[in-house]
Amino acid sequence: MKKLLSLAAMLIAALSLQAQDSLMFRKIYDEALTNGKGYEALRYLCKNIGPRLSGSPNAQKAVDWGKKLMESYGFDRVYLQEVMVPHWVRGAKEEAAIIDGKTRIPVPIAALGMSVATPASGITANVIEVHSLKELETLGESAIKGKIVFFNRPFNPRFIETGDGYSDAGDQRFMGPAVAAKYGAVAAIVRSLTPDINDYPHTGGTLSTPGVKAIPAAAISTQAAEKLSRMLKLRKLPLIKFWFKQNCQTLPDEKSYNVIGELTGTENPNKFITVGGHLDSWDLAEGAHDDGTGIVQSAEALRIFKALGYRPKNSVRAVFFMNEENGHKGGLKYAEEAAKNKEEHIAAIESDFGGFTPRGFTFDGLPAATLEKINKEWKPLFVPYYSDRLTAGFSGTDIEPLRETVPSVALIGFLPDSQRYFDIHHTPTDVFENVSKRELELGSASMAALIYLIDQHGLK
Amino acid sequence: MKKLLSLAAMLIAALSLQAQDSLMFRKIYDEALTNGKGYEALRYLCKNIGPRLSGSPNAQKAVDWGKKLMESYGFDRVYLQEVMVPHWVRGAKEEAAIIDGKTRIPVPIAALGMSVATPASGITANVIEVHSLKELETLGESAIKGKIVFFNRPFNPRFIETGDGYSDAGDQRFMGPAVAAKYGAVAAIVRSLTPDINDYPHTGGTLSTPGVKAIPAAAISTQAAEKLSRMLKLRKLPLIKFWFKQNCQTLPDEKSYNVIGELTGTENPNKFITVGGHLDSWDLAEGAHDDGTGIVQSAEALRIFKALGYRPKNSVRAVFFMNEENGHKGGLKYAEEAAKNKEEHIAAIESDFGGFTPRGFTFDGLPAATLEKINKEWKPLFVPYYSDRLTAGFSGTDIEPLRETVPSVALIGFLPDSQRYFDIHHTPTDVFENVSKRELELGSASMAALIYLIDQHGLK
Repeated sequence: MKKLLSLAAMLIAALSLQAQDSLMFRKIYDEALTNGKGYEALRYLCKNIGPRLSGSPNAQKAVDWGKKLMESYGFDRVYLQEVMVPHWVRGAKEEAAIIDGKTRIPVPIAALGMSVATPASGITANVIEVHSLKELETLGESAIKGKIVFFNRPFNPRFIETGDGYSDAGDQRFMGPAVAAKYGAVAAIVRSLTPDINDYPHTGGTLSTPGVKAIPAAAISTQAAEKLSRMLKLRKLPLIKFWFKQNCQTLPDEKSYNVIGELTGTENPNKFITVGGHLDSWDLAEGAHDDGTGIVQSAEALRIFKALGYRPKNSVRAVFFMNEENGHKGGLKYAEEAAKNKEEHIAAIESDFGGFTPRGFTFDGLPAATLEKINKEWKPLFVPYYSDRLTAGFSGTDIEPLRETVPSVALIGFLPDSQRYFDIHHTPTDVFENVSKRELELGSASMAALIYLIDQHGLK
Repeated sequence: MKKLLSLAAMLIAALSLQAQDSLMFRKIYDEALTNGKGYEALRYLCKNIGPRLSGSPNAQKAVDWGKKLMESYGFDRVYLQEVMVPHWVRGAKEEAAIIDGKTRIPVPIAALGMSVATPASGITANVIEVHSLKELETLGESAIKGKIVFFNRPFNPRFIETGDGYSDAGDQRFMGPAVAAKYGAVAAIVRSLTPDINDYPHTGGTLSTPGVKAIPAAAISTQAAEKLSRMLKLRKLPLIKFWFKQNCQTLPDEKSYNVIGELTGTENPNKFITVGGHLDSWDLAEGAHDDGTGIVQSAEALRIFKALGYRPKNSVRAVFFMNEENGHKGGLKYAEEAAKNKEEHIAAIESDFGGFTPRGFTFDGLPAATLEKINKEWKPLFVPYYSDRLTAGFSGTDIEPLRETVPSVALIGFLPDSQRYFDIHHTPTDVFENVSKRELELGSASMAALIYLIDQHGLK
């Protein structure tokens, strides 16, 4: 009987805890939806600063803006964390490309990030179309040498999560040019990583192989890729040539910063929950969804706590990481400093998949039993807010290095709806106008709500 | 032992049924995502036909187009169902409005659907701002007579489903002008039904009270509403007047049609599963999300079955309803004919909340035990496709009359993400460009998948 009574008492306590949490959720969402500041902050970042690739004057402007923004929110501590970053520039002169068959057809092109330039007059060669890196191996040097390799495996629309489609097709952009160089290709062009058929190229980083001379690498639009492929099928190979020129170069590394804002924990000031996105963006875009939204959502999460008078038990940090796009130096630096300062990290949450309507969160490497517990206890709280998909999955590039340096950390990715992301990803259409205020605010609220639960109940 | 064995056999059969369904889901989504025809059909409807309010020449064009579209898909039967519809027109002359205080400030305005015109020179009066219909009662005739009633209760952003916000604020537009007329108001203006603050008015239908002379009623933009409200607070009431003119009129009813396409059931040709949206749209918009997407998704669901060689046991009908926006005559006619023809209707599904990324379905009046069963047995099939929110809720305006005439029918609403809908609802920004191909296709697939399950397993 005593046992039963104490069980009942525990149940009542648990229920009222649930009710408290539920109430706090409602307050968080109300604050985000009726008093959110993220949308106007994003407008400023996109419209008054704009593209902000690492090492650029605009990246420095974004650092200054980010610091001021968080100071204006009155966080307990706002500071910069110095980090050296690569400084790649597209160059001032126009990029151009021509499919040179019976007639000369200009097509839109954009150098891939970190690529080398072509000669000033451009580069011309026959084109060899491939659909995988493995195909290069099969073809061998004799077939590839002296040619422009054209990676044209389409983004597979069958994946429901477009991020999976990106990973699936992505090796062509990430590694393709470096592998083509090994086989003697003179350049590489890559079909843009999008399921959409349109006429603007999607840029993005490409890697090089140490010890192998890098070749010029560029993205062409999906429409251009379809056109080129059709022409290669219609006409004998030597009759089709491709010409393009680009003027990009890598300058010496620059000093830059992660921008960090903190609410100091009332009970455990040296235990941390990090929430972040990246401050840098590709040079072609305003970087609205990639990743302006992640930035402003992270700051919003803390601002919401301040507005509600919620003082977290553990220290909560919003981190605007520098250099996610072409080097990950900010994320590496943050992890390195965390270890150096012997910080205990409970969890890190990253928002870098766009500011679309929330679906939930992905938990990266969390024990299955913990994930099950979270689904049992926390999922019901998120259901009314449509952010209740709590699954295993990748978290984010900037927080991942923490796994090495602070192994106890739980890595979590914010999971927005992914359907529209790769229509605009790394293109000039990634602009403020394509962000929905409500979607953005619901994301901020979801992130704040999860941080609150972790702060209150931990993740064990 | 025998019992155990038969239990095991049943389990295996159940599992393999689940596996079959799961395989069919994959096929449906693959067809939609790799070979979908809905997006291009929608482009034609929006760009080559455009606005298509009931009774207009464009509505007739849309009927012809819809019939041809479904014929081109090779459905077993495609036919028109005649229905008389209201014919309201905005009129050729420009609509205009001015806040007339110390200075004269022009603001955007749009007549509400079914409203009467102002005199040709417009109407001028003092403004009385109210926030509810109840407030009119409290104020009484003495305060209201001779004035323009200004309904300005904002769309509440706290609702997570924006449809709930629309219902919450909607009485001001639906009923407000009719109630104001009873108290002697000379006209009514209504704050646009959107959580967004922007400068275009959202039109939409308004009702009248039989026996009470209707007054001119119009929507003003949310920005204009904020401005007018500020001015009313700043200056004494008699100093602010409002002037507007509109030229709308209601012409005699016109003959029009629901457009119906059918795959005839192999086992139960006289049992029906209906899927539909509405073909008419407001005159200001292309009617992309409202409700071009619902139309093309309905036809897609049947087209997908054809493409996969799936022959439904029961008859499946795609219905393009006419006149959802200002009369519901198409839905009423369909329900009336269903009863007259003694059709047995298993289920009806409506898509009229935009072509946004799917969340699931709402079941309208289904017994709780059935809904529970569906969640147990069907939800897991939808989880990989992110369309697994299967809850009780409103279905749709066009299928609702079936409840009266064929009480056995299960009414179901397609539930897309609602965050962006009321930014564009009933405005010139409801255009094709604001529809995402993938979101649209995932919706078509979700609807086809649900129809498949109902066709295979019923809803009991």
